[in-house]
Amino acid sequence: MIAPMTVYTDYLWFTTKQKREVVRITDEVAATVRTSGVQEGMVLVSAMHITAAVYVNDWESGLIQDFQVWLEKLAPSGLDYRHHQTGEDNADAHLKRTLMGHQVMLPITKGTLDLGPWEQVFYAEFDGQRRKRVVVKVMGQ
Amino acid sequence: MIAPMTVYTDYLWFTTKQKREVVRITDEVAATVRTSGVQEGMVLVSAMHITAAVYVNDWESGLIQDFQVWLEKLAPSGLDYRHHQTGEDNADAHLKRTLMGHQVMLPITKGTLDLGPWEQVFYAEFDGQRRKRVVVKVMGQ
Amino acid sequence: MIAPMTVYTDYLWFTTKQKREVVRITDEVAATVRTSGVQEGMVLVSAMHITAAVYVNDWESGLIQDFQVWLEKLAPSGLDYRHHQTGEDNADAHLKRTLMGHQVMLPITKGTLDLGPWEQVFYAEFDGQRRKRVVVKVMGQ
Repeated sequence: MIAPMTVYTDYLWFTTKQKREVVRITDEVAATVRTSGVQEGMVLVSAMHITAAVYVNDWESGLIQDFQVWLEKLAPSGLDYRHHQTGEDNADAHLKRTLMGHQVMLPITKGTLDLGPWEQVFYAEFDGQRRKRVVVKVMGQ
Repeated sequence: MIAPMTVYTDYLWFTTKQKREVVRITDEVAATVRTSGVQEGMVLVSAMHITAAVYVNDWESGLIQDFQVWLEKLAPSGLDYRHHQTGEDNADAHLKRTLMGHQVMLPITKGTLDLGPWEQVFYAEFDGQRRKRVVVKVMGQ
Repeated sequence: MIAPMTVYTDYLWFTTKQKREVVRITDEVAATVRTSGVQEGMVLVSAMHITAAVYVNDWESGLIQDFQVWLEKLAPSGLDYRHHQTGEDNADAHLKRTLMGHQVMLPITKGTLDLGPWEQVFYAEFDGQRRKRVVVKVMGQ
């Protein structure tokens, strides 16, 4: 029997308390995969706002702080960005999210996220305190 | 009724006037999605040349300039790169494209690109003035 | 006739001799695609360990060295990272892999990897000398 194709979509919503915040979302993505019923396939997890990131890395608070320090060094806030002539003040957030990446594709094998031992999925907010969305789209069979 | 799977491929061609240029391609990708007839799925948009990028961010000319200044700071041209011993002079273009990312996956929901309010898709050329290609591959049902 | 959907999974294993090493894996990924029998679709190639990268760029030894020098400049080893308070010493490897990206999606057209003339796929190890894995997941028809 050939299993039919399934495409299943969900959205995660975030309103972070801080301007910059990192939220672990592995469990939410895994739950969406379960709901989809897909046994073999992939799931796209992608930030729908352009000052936020989705990335896979370590769930270790020291490293998460290291990332913040590092991003501030490579893409500093407070510079005289041209983007700020529009009234915005978040050019650095656009740059930081570019460094981290705004989406990941996760493999689904035997009905679950096929992740390595330390892989965790994170939502990284760089201009928060307002309602934002991540799309979670499952495709497979 | 179970919708059958569709895979549809198209290519976008670019010969930029400038060595570095950013071209908005959201509409071209959306047109390919419409042509494919896919209602639910994803589309891969990927630069096929290794000194060009495809990324999602803001359609605001100030920020686009900020990106260029920033990339030049993090991955300067004019350094004595080893790659240049081959006769090339574009090592920085390889680095810049790595920072921006060379591909995106866009969700397709109800027959259209499922993008956030400010998400726009761009082709970023870092060593242009010659013919280059982006693959647009739609997969879904 | 409508071709049924296929999802096929394989894993590549690496135990690099050096702590940092770059391994070309284009042929291995192409072999997996052939084995899958998929004619039209995509293949996800994703590092399952969080101090390794998978990226597409040039197969030129000078440029590969340039990348290493550049990564060391942007994400230096030997700094006093908070992550190291856990006993780890590899925070820079987490940052370097983030700059390079940890996964790519490659289009499959007419049964083969649909790559541009210079596109090659690489596994980049930043904390090696131990057994690590890359997932290769083909989806298509």
